Amino acid sequence: MDFEPGTLLKDINSPVDLKKLKESDLEQVCKELRQYIVDVVSVYGGHFAASLGVVELTVALHYVLNTPYDQLVWDVGHQAYGHKILTGRRDVFYTNRVYNGISGFPKRGESEYDTFGVGHSSTSISAALGMAVASHYKGENDRQHVAVIGDGSMTAGMAFEALNHAGIEKSNLLVILNDNCMAIDPNVGALKEYLTDITISKPYNRFRDDIATVLTKISQIGPDALGLAKKIEKSIKGTLLKNSNLFESLKFRYFGPVDGHDVKRLVKIIDELRDIPGPKLLHCITVKGKGFALAEKDQTKWHAPGLFDKITGEIKKAVSDKPIAPKYQDVFGHTLVELAEINSKIMGITPAMPSGSSMNIMMKAMPSRAFDVGIAEQHAVTFSAGLATRGMVPFCNIYSSFMQRAYDQVIHDVALQKLNVVMCLDRAGIAGADGPTHHGAYDLAYMRCVPNLQVAAPMNEEELRNLMYTAQLEDRGPFVIRYPRGQGVMPDWRRPFKEVKVGKGRKICDGEDLAVLSIGHIGNEVVKASISLNSEGIYPAHYDLRFIKPLDEELLHEVFRKFKKIITVEDGCIQGGMGSAVLEFMADYNYTANILRLGIPDRFVEHGEQNQLWAECGYDAGGIIAAVKKFSVGHKTSTMAG
Amino acid sequence: MDFEPGTLLKDINSPVDLKKLKESDLEQVCKELRQYIVDVVSVYGGHFAASLGVVELTVALHYVLNTPYDQLVWDVGHQAYGHKILTGRRDVFYTNRVYNGISGFPKRGESEYDTFGVGHSSTSISAALGMAVASHYKGENDRQHVAVIGDGSMTAGMAFEALNHAGIEKSNLLVILNDNCMAIDPNVGALKEYLTDITISKPYNRFRDDIATVLTKISQIGPDALGLAKKIEKSIKGTLLKNSNLFESLKFRYFGPVDGHDVKRLVKIIDELRDIPGPKLLHCITVKGKGFALAEKDQTKWHAPGLFDKITGEIKKAVSDKPIAPKYQDVFGHTLVELAEINSKIMGITPAMPSGSSMNIMMKAMPSRAFDVGIAEQHAVTFSAGLATRGMVPFCNIYSSFMQRAYDQVIHDVALQKLNVVMCLDRAGIAGADGPTHHGAYDLAYMRCVPNLQVAAPMNEEELRNLMYTAQLEDRGPFVIRYPRGQGVMPDWRRPFKEVKVGKGRKICDGEDLAVLSIGHIGNEVVKASISLNSEGIYPAHYDLRFIKPLDEELLHEVFRKFKKIITVEDGCIQGGMGSAVLEFMADYNYTANILRLGIPDRFVEHGEQNQLWAECGYDAGGIIAAVKKFSVGHKTSTMAG
Repeated sequence: MDFEPGTLLKDINSPVDLKKLKESDLEQVCKELRQYIVDVVSVYGGHFAASLGVVELTVALHYVLNTPYDQLVWDVGHQAYGHKILTGRRDVFYTNRVYNGISGFPKRGESEYDTFGVGHSSTSISAALGMAVASHYKGENDRQHVAVIGDGSMTAGMAFEALNHAGIEKSNLLVILNDNCMAIDPNVGALKEYLTDITISKPYNRFRDDIATVLTKISQIGPDALGLAKKIEKSIKGTLLKNSNLFESLKFRYFGPVDGHDVKRLVKIIDELRDIPGPKLLHCITVKGKGFALAEKDQTKWHAPGLFDKITGEIKKAVSDKPIAPKYQDVFGHTLVELAEINSKIMGITPAMPSGSSMNIMMKAMPSRAFDVGIAEQHAVTFSAGLATRGMVPFCNIYSSFMQRAYDQVIHDVALQKLNVVMCLDRAGIAGADGPTHHGAYDLAYMRCVPNLQVAAPMNEEELRNLMYTAQLEDRGPFVIRYPRGQGVMPDWRRPFKEVKVGKGRKICDGEDLAVLSIGHIGNEVVKASISLNSEGIYPAHYDLRFIKPLDEELLHEVFRKFKKIITVEDGCIQGGMGSAVLEFMADYNYTANILRLGIPDRFVEHGEQNQLWAECGYDAGGIIAAVKKFSVGHKTSTMAG
Repeated sequence: MDFEPGTLLKDINSPVDLKKLKESDLEQVCKELRQYIVDVVSVYGGHFAASLGVVELTVALHYVLNTPYDQLVWDVGHQAYGHKILTGRRDVFYTNRVYNGISGFPKRGESEYDTFGVGHSSTSISAALGMAVASHYKGENDRQHVAVIGDGSMTAGMAFEALNHAGIEKSNLLVILNDNCMAIDPNVGALKEYLTDITISKPYNRFRDDIATVLTKISQIGPDALGLAKKIEKSIKGTLLKNSNLFESLKFRYFGPVDGHDVKRLVKIIDELRDIPGPKLLHCITVKGKGFALAEKDQTKWHAPGLFDKITGEIKKAVSDKPIAPKYQDVFGHTLVELAEINSKIMGITPAMPSGSSMNIMMKAMPSRAFDVGIAEQHAVTFSAGLATRGMVPFCNIYSSFMQRAYDQVIHDVALQKLNVVMCLDRAGIAGADGPTHHGAYDLAYMRCVPNLQVAAPMNEEELRNLMYTAQLEDRGPFVIRYPRGQGVMPDWRRPFKEVKVGKGRKICDGEDLAVLSIGHIGNEVVKASISLNSEGIYPAHYDLRFIKPLDEELLHEVFRKFKKIITVEDGCIQGGMGSAVLEFMADYNYTANILRLGIPDRFVEHGEQNQLWAECGYDAGGIIAAVKKFSVGHKTSTMAG
């Protein structure tokens, strides 16, 4: 499909072209840019509302700043579609998030305008400060450094760490707070309430001027009043005004709030801010989804709506005549409520992912027992640990790649203290279109080395339910359950709970010649492979380990006694992952076997559909079939030992 | 040695005894408690200044609160010696941090008064909030929950994440900010400056009253003035006063600052705060090292001074007639300056560990190129990544166990973007007396699964220097160097730099029968073991892998071709560690060998001297000798294959 950019936008091949336009043209550019995003995303999918909300900001920044000499960092990055379109990627924008297409996030390798790769939230201030300090050191004091960060991202600890450091550096740093009261779901926490306070009350700078005016008037009343006015002015200046704003407390100069959709005003103010040295923060009020009425109204739904009709706003759903298996996340969400109904100790915790994790189901059903703690993975885990010390059974749901943010808390607060925290890692394994920042590639490796943890991965919906059921039984200790993004395999998934024996796997099918060991959902690819192989007269055995920690030693003894050729399959990194655990078992018990490990190789895998990437990595059904054939043949005639 | 507690302290076996005393006795209790800490720590060592600073706070909290029903969480926990002494551990306090003795930190297994295990900073608010929310849910609204947190710990992101969440919860949470302007080194950052501001300016609550008084006076001048005063009052109340304090911005009620050494005042105020529901913060000003003049003067030195003469204050140094090898950290510190002198791109970054990492050497020599960013590991890594995008070569030094806090940033910001950040992990492996929270047990496992990283461990000082030299050469990409706490082995360590070939190990000695593969400093234990074994006619070969990533495949091919028995030795967890990487190599190249992995087993190792714990885990020289003998014999007569 061909997309026709508007009359101005079609000639903007880089910010240089944008700068040639008159200021009075910018509103038209914004209109065209917004339309172009709607046109392409409605047909090809992707993040939507975030980029619509920063169209004016994007245009103003590239119009005023000397990018890429001036350094622009977009926090999270799914707000950067406008930026991509203006910086030479308009005509390939339709390949956004597609296998072999451009990334859905800024990416250094893609453009010199993408100064920093983003994806996880709240890194922008740290990164931009690093750039600013380097420029200062090099004497490049004309260079500007801008971090654009949402109010949701601002709740993450690392943003605060960066503000705390930036406040005492003298380098040129402009933080633009894109305040739309939203993360993916509505933003929560004290900071959000505070930002609302300063927004709805009289704008702060104007207030400061007002106070001065009133004090002058008072002082004109007479000598008594003059003295009192001076006294109050001194007090206010000394104690309050200097630090009266949260950001000024952190030694930033604060400007705003300003209307983030007034492109002319933004151009003016950004231009003025260029000349003010040191750390400064511009508070912009924007509307997520701006310009697309439905998106403005339901911002969570329109964060990344999939394909839709750009006229009617109807979101297109895949049509199938087969019964559809649910998403794992929904099985989690509904099952959690079921369990919480029978176990009053259960609580739910999500760091700003109510809809992404389906924790919103419990938040709706049991609002006093489910907590959205903001983008705050570290806090989420230790808060859960605190709950567990008082006898609660918290289910803390965090995407696998985001759990990397709370690794220390898992070790130090949960595992070391053997607390009953159930950590559910959604988006484990290849995550799909979000790409390398979001693949949950490392969890099996980084979790299995931690003592006291129990780490499991369900192969289907029923297993997820049963693992959740098992994890909440009396004094189970720390429990990790990892499962992938997307759909499972069981349309009829609401089955009665059964306890799973911790550390027990299961045999899926007997076989000859070689055994395939898998863990988690990817085992379904092994099942597909087996069916196909059986039709060719090849019969591999298939075992589902289910737990990477503790290992099912009984099962492994059986496998190693019977087989000299073993293939391990996991949707995770093969360095240190499940296959590696199997090798350790082999060494510890002095078995000998040829082991082939399939999984994510030792490189960052780009974006694409999950099955495309599984295929690329060689562990979809096709890859497994090929591996089994090669491995069987290779060993029938020769030993592979070196 | 026997320690004689003072006349009141000797009868305090739990807070129940403390509560029986009159309020007028508390100053004496404080005096005796302080003296007892001085008496014991001067002879047995441990953390010192932090606990002296909170003596009054400790006494007041246990006097007023109904501990352990009321929940008290001590951030970091090295401030909790007074707490330990008052809660039944007075007579075993001399075993503090000693092998098989009590822990240097609060520990749940040790006492019901230790509500939460601490060690790493900034967890206390999250944990206490979890407890408070659980109590609220259970309807235990009389239960108090207190987090005592230093101003240094408050700079860490997770503390902010917790405040942001706590501000919107209604549960009973009292955060006591123990403000002494210090972490281990002087606290840095905008927050610290802010706290100083509000401390030296007129105390905040009093200021609020003053404004009201002045406004009343103005309004009495006449009708004109009345109108204006009302206007100003309304503005101030609406906009400023409500959120005028950083903590009030986050919806905490703020009290203070108060003198943290006035025990009577503390008793009164904590008693009053009990009756105020919701989140509140008490700002206490204390002096780290209070009551021991030298410690008050040089708080960094007296953070954990070792043994000392409690009268003269002379710190006792180990005497040796042999030339003494330097600490690895000092080799790092001096070498960094040497390298920075020849490479102007080098910068140094430490998150609040200038003296612990010896980054203070560069901070002194090149203040514009070395940064203490506060307790902020996440920011430290991404700030370094930002520097690297602009051509700098940042050396970011973080203790191995603290790097767990920045794991996501290592993956997402450094490795994925292949940026030239040199990450130096001090305190890797068994860390000693600080125990399980501080052992750097997991880094080899959690780093080696990340693509693009180069991960090395030096066996001695010269190697550390050469690895640092190598890491800063043109476009090296992400480089991790991990080394242990304490001394190396080369008194004469200042040798000329030599480039190390990345991914190359070395053969230490040839041998027969079996090979020992080691990585890092623990290889010196293998050397000791070899000498002893040689004298008994056993000649193991010894190879130093040096890099766990990339592996030296050439070396490993040699080893696997020559040997069928291989022992791997690492000062790190054996689940997923170096031995596991060797197993992966074996599987990938279809070698067969018996492999015995020595290292930290799959449990949390308690505190003690490094060599005590190496011995306990079976990989000191003695453990290696035993393993070699058993392994050799076991395989001479039989195959161990199952």
